[in-house]
Amino acid sequence: MKRKGFLDLGFAKLDIEREKRRGVPEIIYASGKTAPQLKKIVKEFRNHSDLIFVSRLQYPQYKTLKKEMPSLKYFRQAKIAFWGRPRRPEKGNVLVITAGTSDIGVAEEAAVFLELTGNKVERIYDVGVAGVHRLEFFKEKLAKAKVIIVVAGMEGALASIVSGLTAVPLIGVPTSVGYGAHFKGMAALLGMMNSCSPGVSVVNIDNGLGAGYVAHLINK
Amino acid sequence: MKRKGFLDLGFAKLDIEREKRRGVPEIIYASGKTAPQLKKIVKEFRNHSDLIFVSRLQYPQYKTLKKEMPSLKYFRQAKIAFWGRPRRPEKGNVLVITAGTSDIGVAEEAAVFLELTGNKVERIYDVGVAGVHRLEFFKEKLAKAKVIIVVAGMEGALASIVSGLTAVPLIGVPTSVGYGAHFKGMAALLGMMNSCSPGVSVVNIDNGLGAGYVAHLINK
Amino acid sequence: MKRKGFLDLGFAKLDIEREKRRGVPEIIYASGKTAPQLKKIVKEFRNHSDLIFVSRLQYPQYKTLKKEMPSLKYFRQAKIAFWGRPRRPEKGNVLVITAGTSDIGVAEEAAVFLELTGNKVERIYDVGVAGVHRLEFFKEKLAKAKVIIVVAGMEGALASIVSGLTAVPLIGVPTSVGYGAHFKGMAALLGMMNSCSPGVSVVNIDNGLGAGYVAHLINK
Amino acid sequence: MKRKGFLDLGFAKLDIEREKRRGVPEIIYASGKTAPQLKKIVKEFRNHSDLIFVSRLQYPQYKTLKKEMPSLKYFRQAKIAFWGRPRRPEKGNVLVITAGTSDIGVAEEAAVFLELTGNKVERIYDVGVAGVHRLEFFKEKLAKAKVIIVVAGMEGALASIVSGLTAVPLIGVPTSVGYGAHFKGMAALLGMMNSCSPGVSVVNIDNGLGAGYVAHLINK
Amino acid sequence: MKRKGFLDLGFAKLDIEREKRRGVPEIIYASGKTAPQLKKIVKEFRNHSDLIFVSRLQYPQYKTLKKEMPSLKYFRQAKIAFWGRPRRPEKGNVLVITAGTSDIGVAEEAAVFLELTGNKVERIYDVGVAGVHRLEFFKEKLAKAKVIIVVAGMEGALASIVSGLTAVPLIGVPTSVGYGAHFKGMAALLGMMNSCSPGVSVVNIDNGLGAGYVAHLINK
Amino acid sequence: MKRKGFLDLGFAKLDIEREKRRGVPEIIYASGKTAPQLKKIVKEFRNHSDLIFVSRLQYPQYKTLKKEMPSLKYFRQAKIAFWGRPRRPEKGNVLVITAGTSDIGVAEEAAVFLELTGNKVERIYDVGVAGVHRLEFFKEKLAKAKVIIVVAGMEGALASIVSGLTAVPLIGVPTSVGYGAHFKGMAALLGMMNSCSPGVSVVNIDNGLGAGYVAHLINK
Amino acid sequence: MKRKGFLDLGFAKLDIEREKRRGVPEIIYASGKTAPQLKKIVKEFRNHSDLIFVSRLQYPQYKTLKKEMPSLKYFRQAKIAFWGRPRRPEKGNVLVITAGTSDIGVAEEAAVFLELTGNKVERIYDVGVAGVHRLEFFKEKLAKAKVIIVVAGMEGALASIVSGLTAVPLIGVPTSVGYGAHFKGMAALLGMMNSCSPGVSVVNIDNGLGAGYVAHLINK
Amino acid sequence: MKRKGFLDLGFAKLDIEREKRRGVPEIIYASGKTAPQLKKIVKEFRNHSDLIFVSRLQYPQYKTLKKEMPSLKYFRQAKIAFWGRPRRPEKGNVLVITAGTSDIGVAEEAAVFLELTGNKVERIYDVGVAGVHRLEFFKEKLAKAKVIIVVAGMEGALASIVSGLTAVPLIGVPTSVGYGAHFKGMAALLGMMNSCSPGVSVVNIDNGLGAGYVAHLINK
Repeated sequence: MKRKGFLDLGFAKLDIEREKRRGVPEIIYASGKTAPQLKKIVKEFRNHSDLIFVSRLQYPQYKTLKKEMPSLKYFRQAKIAFWGRPRRPEKGNVLVITAGTSDIGVAEEAAVFLELTGNKVERIYDVGVAGVHRLEFFKEKLAKAKVIIVVAGMEGALASIVSGLTAVPLIGVPTSVGYGAHFKGMAALLGMMNSCSPGVSVVNIDNGLGAGYVAHLINK
Repeated sequence: MKRKGFLDLGFAKLDIEREKRRGVPEIIYASGKTAPQLKKIVKEFRNHSDLIFVSRLQYPQYKTLKKEMPSLKYFRQAKIAFWGRPRRPEKGNVLVITAGTSDIGVAEEAAVFLELTGNKVERIYDVGVAGVHRLEFFKEKLAKAKVIIVVAGMEGALASIVSGLTAVPLIGVPTSVGYGAHFKGMAALLGMMNSCSPGVSVVNIDNGLGAGYVAHLINK
Repeated sequence: MKRKGFLDLGFAKLDIEREKRRGVPEIIYASGKTAPQLKKIVKEFRNHSDLIFVSRLQYPQYKTLKKEMPSLKYFRQAKIAFWGRPRRPEKGNVLVITAGTSDIGVAEEAAVFLELTGNKVERIYDVGVAGVHRLEFFKEKLAKAKVIIVVAGMEGALASIVSGLTAVPLIGVPTSVGYGAHFKGMAALLGMMNSCSPGVSVVNIDNGLGAGYVAHLINK
Repeated sequence: MKRKGFLDLGFAKLDIEREKRRGVPEIIYASGKTAPQLKKIVKEFRNHSDLIFVSRLQYPQYKTLKKEMPSLKYFRQAKIAFWGRPRRPEKGNVLVITAGTSDIGVAEEAAVFLELTGNKVERIYDVGVAGVHRLEFFKEKLAKAKVIIVVAGMEGALASIVSGLTAVPLIGVPTSVGYGAHFKGMAALLGMMNSCSPGVSVVNIDNGLGAGYVAHLINK
Repeated sequence: MKRKGFLDLGFAKLDIEREKRRGVPEIIYASGKTAPQLKKIVKEFRNHSDLIFVSRLQYPQYKTLKKEMPSLKYFRQAKIAFWGRPRRPEKGNVLVITAGTSDIGVAEEAAVFLELTGNKVERIYDVGVAGVHRLEFFKEKLAKAKVIIVVAGMEGALASIVSGLTAVPLIGVPTSVGYGAHFKGMAALLGMMNSCSPGVSVVNIDNGLGAGYVAHLINK
Repeated sequence: MKRKGFLDLGFAKLDIEREKRRGVPEIIYASGKTAPQLKKIVKEFRNHSDLIFVSRLQYPQYKTLKKEMPSLKYFRQAKIAFWGRPRRPEKGNVLVITAGTSDIGVAEEAAVFLELTGNKVERIYDVGVAGVHRLEFFKEKLAKAKVIIVVAGMEGALASIVSGLTAVPLIGVPTSVGYGAHFKGMAALLGMMNSCSPGVSVVNIDNGLGAGYVAHLINK
Repeated sequence: MKRKGFLDLGFAKLDIEREKRRGVPEIIYASGKTAPQLKKIVKEFRNHSDLIFVSRLQYPQYKTLKKEMPSLKYFRQAKIAFWGRPRRPEKGNVLVITAGTSDIGVAEEAAVFLELTGNKVERIYDVGVAGVHRLEFFKEKLAKAKVIIVVAGMEGALASIVSGLTAVPLIGVPTSVGYGAHFKGMAALLGMMNSCSPGVSVVNIDNGLGAGYVAHLINK
Repeated sequence: MKRKGFLDLGFAKLDIEREKRRGVPEIIYASGKTAPQLKKIVKEFRNHSDLIFVSRLQYPQYKTLKKEMPSLKYFRQAKIAFWGRPRRPEKGNVLVITAGTSDIGVAEEAAVFLELTGNKVERIYDVGVAGVHRLEFFKEKLAKAKVIIVVAGMEGALASIVSGLTAVPLIGVPTSVGYGAHFKGMAALLGMMNSCSPGVSVVNIDNGLGAGYVAHLINK
């Protein structure tokens, strides 16, 4: 049922004025929702938006949804599905960097979201601080970036290093990549929170999408 | 064996005077009990109560019990089974609100318990603070409530918001819905605990039943 | 001794090319430094920068420094001293909001830094979520902001609320205002980290300066 | 300056419609506010409310305020000051229980607030579970209570015990009374949160006022 | 290879003088050991002890061992296997109490160990504090006990209650029975640690065997 | 006022049947009580017990009490005051061991309590595991002990070592002696909790009295 | 693509000058990498190094890699695969000690790495502090060691004990072997961190390889 | 009283064979010891060692000791006093690096200990990762070091950076320099523990002496 500014499905209330109010349509967070719920949400939402994102969608869930909505597309590393018309890449460069290979899934969540919403994206993957000289090779990419996202597990130190070299806003994404006293990302989160280099702000562990969203708002 | 006020099954002592003493019969918490234990408990309990609740009962466990007790009923989202005679809905409105779709299971645990014990229940599901204007549409339901239960994961902020708008007791139920620095509900719990809006008290993470119980005691 | 890009005082190495590299001169963090160390640092730094910030400077420490550097200025709530030439207010509006009166010190650290570095600043103080309708009165200020900083202790929910209403980047600053299960700011930090409203990124507890720095980098 | 529903003092926005909306006037939390701020707030608030509470007010702060507002009254154990006209004791019994002598300050914060807002209050202090038989002597008080507040540090077990004996809502207030692995109240908080006796909800550590507020809302 | 006081199997060094030194033979902790390792250890140990315990042995592991050592016996709830000659029940009563039905596995680990080492054991299972009056029925058992073990999850309050009623040493065993803010036993552990009733000491979460061992040492 | 089994002073309920029920009179925990409260309690208690303990009594508090009760005695390291008639040393040896010199205050709390309640006490102070060979010199004392108390900060390893050498119950008292990742005793507490040597049970951090109490109950 | 000092595979940047810079070739951490990624990395790396390590490689992953690289070797307990030419055992003795049998996997990760990089390795497994006299038998091995690695779960006390007996650097490896209040290795980590015996430094929980690496750097 | 290998002062047992056994005399940790205890220990120890260290000695404590032992020397930043004959600087270079100026006190504890025990020491202070290019200037010092100690608060990332550039063992000392989500050094400790650069081992927060001790053992 349509109500003032939202669509009421009982188990879900879709914020159909999100794009008008915030510049980006509501994103459907798949985790914890059943397949029938997701189907119903996407189906109803299509009448009110020309672009729908589903995040944290597992591949088997995607396959199920795909049957009824053949035009649904899926980015496997990013675990993002979308339907509709991506925005044109008219906005400046967002640079997405990872410390390790295992951080790429989280980074792609940010990168794919940014590309679909009209941002140009550059990637530098696996330049962790154990061999930070590898970063120097990519100075040009660093110089052209309007916003930088650093995705890192372990001690999360890459955020401080990159921030110290640049003059643009940097969003840190701690990841759960690590073990033992890493506490599933807490070590990386605390590392980024306590960065001695000002200019770093942080989103939740593994929250690539959140970082992409912030970068998109900055990159206007 | 029946003893002073309780039934002694060796592995369990059933509090058959719970209803007399506390107004609600003892609730059987299924988690951690074996199927034979549950069967024995329910079977023995039937001679001493006209209403039996089993909470946190998984569906397969229910199917097993059902075979021997065909009159056992089950609410799948709430994971509650009951046997016997529900109380008549003679008590005032309890309003159960969730922040998200994924919180509904916990909310239903509260709602179903409340309905079986004679409370009228209203539901508003998925009105999280990212689009808190959705809440305004339901002012009437808010105004009629005698008690409110707010079920929320993530940052748990919905409890503060709703409390700030109303003049009835509000019970917060933090849920484990979230990830990363959510610590399986701890972030929501701490959020509700530190609510800047007085009038909020809190039960354990995912403890829908506990919230329903408190609401039932208030709603007299 | 001057070396490649920095000044070596033995106990401190001053990054005199920080402004060139990052757009803002190095900020001297007073906490944990002795008065003689601070004096020496500021004195030497004056030959290499036309604007020097000292943050977290207690008032008595300031009085001591002031004796030798009469042109040093001090913002008491912000605990920031500066020497030299502030930048002209040519950049767009940064809006600094607090949930409570006790959060103002942290907010001023952000606001003063932003004003000295050439940003226009608007303030809305004490609009916590217990009476969130107070926020509606300031819709105009919200609409004009290019970046928003939300400073909040307790459950930190104000960040989610404000983010849900706006389409600009929002930096959350959890504060240590609270008690008990607040754990000196941890509850607010976790609350903001788990915000259900995308578009929020977070800096360390009480780190007003860090938030100001990020806002300054965004507000170009 | 008066605005829609609130008074804007710049550093504070007073919610002058709190009583209309929530049944209790806004409570001024003194902790973290300067003496001049408190003076200004109370002075301005007097024109808009016939009853003003100041909580967490230290005695020396009270003495300072008292000079300008001779009609300000103070409860030393409760650390509550008030000005104006307390409500008449027309509402039913709230029973406030403590486990130990050291918990009395927190209990009085609840009790004084309840008395000023028109509730009858009974007290049972120092009946901790090390000698729980002491509780039996007070069965009459237990039986007459409409709501119960249990204030306890250490392991916080008193909340479970009392809840098991009664059929009214019980609000647990964990206190910071304890040492070592008590973690300033966390042990008591977790104890109450995990109470095996349904019917307990919990407020923040040492938050006597919050418990009083919830009890007041229930006790209608 | 036999060495001074121990048997060296390379991957394990068996303490064959443990009984002489400590009064109880070394106990083999099965968790984390492979089936071949367990076999080798038990086989070699048989030449040096007339009683061998294997704790935390899963049933399938037991079945494998049983094939080669048909005289191995197994207690399924306790997850203890033993080989050889149990001691005669010549020692006084140890009373093992649980708060709930789900705590019985841990309690049996203590009880079985105690029985095999020559202690008389009494059991009272499922007398949690939500209906603590059930405990009164067992006053005689309480009076005859020389040592008491209390096994409890949730808030762990039963240890304090029982301790307050008796004059013998009490060993608390917190269990991981609980959810949410129980943190897998931490809430119960902290509760017992902070017991307001002196006379309680505590062993690790779910460590029934450890409690049995301490009780055995006391019960001489 | 005297009631069934206890003395009611309003702010305190004295358990005058504690000795009858538990073998030791109630112990007055001074921390968090005012001087007038302590005076009143001791004064009233004297009519009902021939031995009164006050624990955690700071020296200045003692001096104040002493004025009105000249027969009050005080053990400065143990921070225990007592009045009345200590029990005769008729019970077997309790051995109190510390890892370091800084742990002696906590150890004395145990030792003094034990001596006053009729136990013989031996002490071995400062035999930490960094030079564990020092322990060997005291084998005789170890052999004669009926119960052992080990008081240790840092990593708390001494409890495991001593337990491995003896066949009597051992009570571990973790202390807050340490720094950094010691977390005010948590490291020592966890160390003792996870002792690989069975036979160790643990009391709260710095709880010398609690350990003494348990040892007293064992040492019958 | 080869770049300055590293090989750029897009998803990974191989540090081919690691051996030149640090004395040991880059180690490939298998956890979190897909089989195709591992294959590609090893294949490319072979052209730039005569020795390749893959750590944390599960057996099934190894079998897959083995198919294409038949010369790949695997140590099953250590979960290390290598390709190429191990260094000759020309360096002094490293002694690897474990407290228990379950710690051997972690210890082997250290030992195998050390052997492949040219260190002589001695092993003493299962000499935990519950029977620390077992250690005395191995005094000769202790005396010959140039560096010692102590691998221990539970309370981790073995590191302190061994350190107190020797005059060489000791690296502690806390393991996740334990349960309950062990918090997956945190108790052992804190124990080693707070060792009262100087000369101990610590690596991450279960990080056998890290300990081996440090020992290799020391053992020159 | 002299006993086998140690001196027994009752409250302290001095390990007079520590130097023989471990290569360094016992170090007296002043924190938590009274002035008379320290005096007695140093006085007695002088007959058994030609070099005595007292660590964590506050300046006023030093002044008191100095009166009786005029030959006692003191390093104020390091808070180390010593008496006797320092060893000659015959051993190779240990490089001590700090991230910030506030870390110098901890660094000096390491450096002074190392110099007194015969190691050559080089220092590089204040080269934190916010301007990591400052480190490049000191490549020569890095190249000559036999062991490196990195002292850092905040996110502790400097340890990873330096380790990635060098081929010698590196000991990380996390410091309590930081605030908010730094948790008094825990963030830095976790950062170093999770270093993505192998070759780092870690000592307790602020434990400069421990790092110096390990470096001394390595630097033979």
